[in-house]
Amino acid sequence: MTALSSGKLVNLVRLADAAGRFKMLAIDQRDSLRKALGNATGRAADQVTYDDMAATKTLITEVLSPYATATLVDPVYGLPRAVNVIPGDVGLLAATEETGYDRGGPAGKERKSRLIDGWSVAKAKRAGANAVKLLIYYNPEASSEVRAHQQQLVRRVGEDCVREDIPFLLELVTYPIAEPSADTPEFARRRPQHTIESAREFSKDEYRVDILKLEFPGDLKYAREFCAGAFDGKERPAVYNVAQVKGFCRELNEVSRRPWVILSGGVDIKEFLANLELALDGGASGFLCGRAIWKDVIAKYPDRDAMRAFLGADGVYNFLRANATAERARPWFSHPRFGGGDKVRLPEGDESWYREYAEGVRVGSS
Amino acid sequence: MTALSSGKLVNLVRLADAAGRFKMLAIDQRDSLRKALGNATGRAADQVTYDDMAATKTLITEVLSPYATATLVDPVYGLPRAVNVIPGDVGLLAATEETGYDRGGPAGKERKSRLIDGWSVAKAKRAGANAVKLLIYYNPEASSEVRAHQQQLVRRVGEDCVREDIPFLLELVTYPIAEPSADTPEFARRRPQHTIESAREFSKDEYRVDILKLEFPGDLKYAREFCAGAFDGKERPAVYNVAQVKGFCRELNEVSRRPWVILSGGVDIKEFLANLELALDGGASGFLCGRAIWKDVIAKYPDRDAMRAFLGADGVYNFLRANATAERARPWFSHPRFGGGDKVRLPEGDESWYREYAEGVRVGSS
Repeated sequence: MTALSSGKLVNLVRLADAAGRFKMLAIDQRDSLRKALGNATGRAADQVTYDDMAATKTLITEVLSPYATATLVDPVYGLPRAVNVIPGDVGLLAATEETGYDRGGPAGKERKSRLIDGWSVAKAKRAGANAVKLLIYYNPEASSEVRAHQQQLVRRVGEDCVREDIPFLLELVTYPIAEPSADTPEFARRRPQHTIESAREFSKDEYRVDILKLEFPGDLKYAREFCAGAFDGKERPAVYNVAQVKGFCRELNEVSRRPWVILSGGVDIKEFLANLELALDGGASGFLCGRAIWKDVIAKYPDRDAMRAFLGADGVYNFLRANATAERARPWFSHPRFGGGDKVRLPEGDESWYREYAEGVRVGSS
Repeated sequence: MTALSSGKLVNLVRLADAAGRFKMLAIDQRDSLRKALGNATGRAADQVTYDDMAATKTLITEVLSPYATATLVDPVYGLPRAVNVIPGDVGLLAATEETGYDRGGPAGKERKSRLIDGWSVAKAKRAGANAVKLLIYYNPEASSEVRAHQQQLVRRVGEDCVREDIPFLLELVTYPIAEPSADTPEFARRRPQHTIESAREFSKDEYRVDILKLEFPGDLKYAREFCAGAFDGKERPAVYNVAQVKGFCRELNEVSRRPWVILSGGVDIKEFLANLELALDGGASGFLCGRAIWKDVIAKYPDRDAMRAFLGADGVYNFLRANATAERARPWFSHPRFGGGDKVRLPEGDESWYREYAEGVRVGSS
């Protein structure tokens, strides 16, 4: 059984439902949303304004966050504009990474992440967040220099989260280096190993991660049972079958020494629900899902009435199906890290606790 | 309309129900609980152990906190032992004052409060609290030296709460100086003015209070309609009538330039419910109640089964009645401080927010 400090425990509990299952909404997208809003309104991405972004995020947050156990926002648009529409019983996660990436590696095809300049874990904690989220691009086949850079970034945020006593949710996203694009049989074949190796790496204690947010360990569009166009009508070659993918999910679960949730990564809702079901069978503790639930609303911008109607119907419907599916999630406190039990405890627990708590940590004495 | 910073807003929302009404449980008692446990087990108060205290608090918290919108704990027993039994959708308040008081004033009958040594607002924030509570004894007729001491303490905690961006709940409790005891016609007559003058003082912006936790502005045991023994069977002289007490509640509401809740101060549940109803008519935003709900369980210590049965029956029944009564509370965001509307906003709200947030405040840069 792993003991948790007070700030980690109290705030982890706020992210999940009463049974310990994560049913979380992501609305921290920046570049991808900017591009989609540009497409929807016939503008270049850089013509999309702050108000376009903030208004879209606020509307989505207002309609959908009541269905979430927690909502992930960014500090640029979400915290200053949308935080007041999140209900009091819904947890709050704040993103720390700058959108996009810097290019790196010998061929310039590798990705290095950066934190948002002027923002910090301490600010997120002070602003009322219950957890901090860091997305890093991570391809285990990248050069050691780029991998070391990404690892160092995770270590740094992990330390900041320990200092602020706030849960750390780490999101790992792979990307093609040698392959022409992510939607290729070559890359589909690599996905399972990438996801598994990344989860193994960042499960190490030195990174101080509390929850892993993982990609599905495979691409079902390239699975024998679905490759005839089940999700998007497009036919693709099979590189594995569902039984093999189930094996990847089990392997992912074995190497994940932290409770883990699945992300949607922009796939359609049908594919996300299929991913989710398989991930839960493998041992996931729920999801942190954005675009699969709400992305189709963007095409209706700026017609607020049409957006609200769509979100209230299709958006809520998508969310409710994901929530229903996640009823089979393993409660986070039943993860082997916590002894497989349904109890977690504080490491402290006696009359000296409040004196010793945060000793050695920069905490102002009142 | 008063704008709120992110940490104040996000955490205030967590203390109330969806309609903005506070239905809060207090289980931060220390000296009074120690004495009661001593009485229940035939021991002197100083023979009551840490485990006696922690076990009692944990059991009460476990059974009753699910009925609360927020639970107030102390950092000595509650945070290290009971915090893991509070559901994720229940807010957490942490006490900062040392139990009891130091004697002061010309006749040594006045009360000076102290903070818990080794604890701080920063530690409370780090540990996951959604608000900080400070109880001060305050008699507006006390010597200027003692009043200044108490005012300075409030100012200091108020500043700490601004620095940590966490809501500040201030509890004001009066006490007799010239009178032989609190249960006298003389002191009953003084209560309304004491409560009103104290609320007026600590509504000043300089104290940075977010919520006032106030005593009932009168003693219904000395009201004409109840003084024949309505609550405890004991007959007392009348010093006012209910119509006058309603006037005190209205006056209290007028001077309280912050949302305010009523405390129970150890009265029985019947009297508390009567107090609550009148306070709500006056404009209170709910309650923060401890002993009136659960105090009768102490007599059953250490019989855990009997305690659990009592709490699950009488304790829950008391809480549900208080909650039902509080359905008429004024939502905190409808207080005139927030413009009488049902919307609050952040003062910030554009793309520079995350950079400027907490500038000038000690916040580690990540």
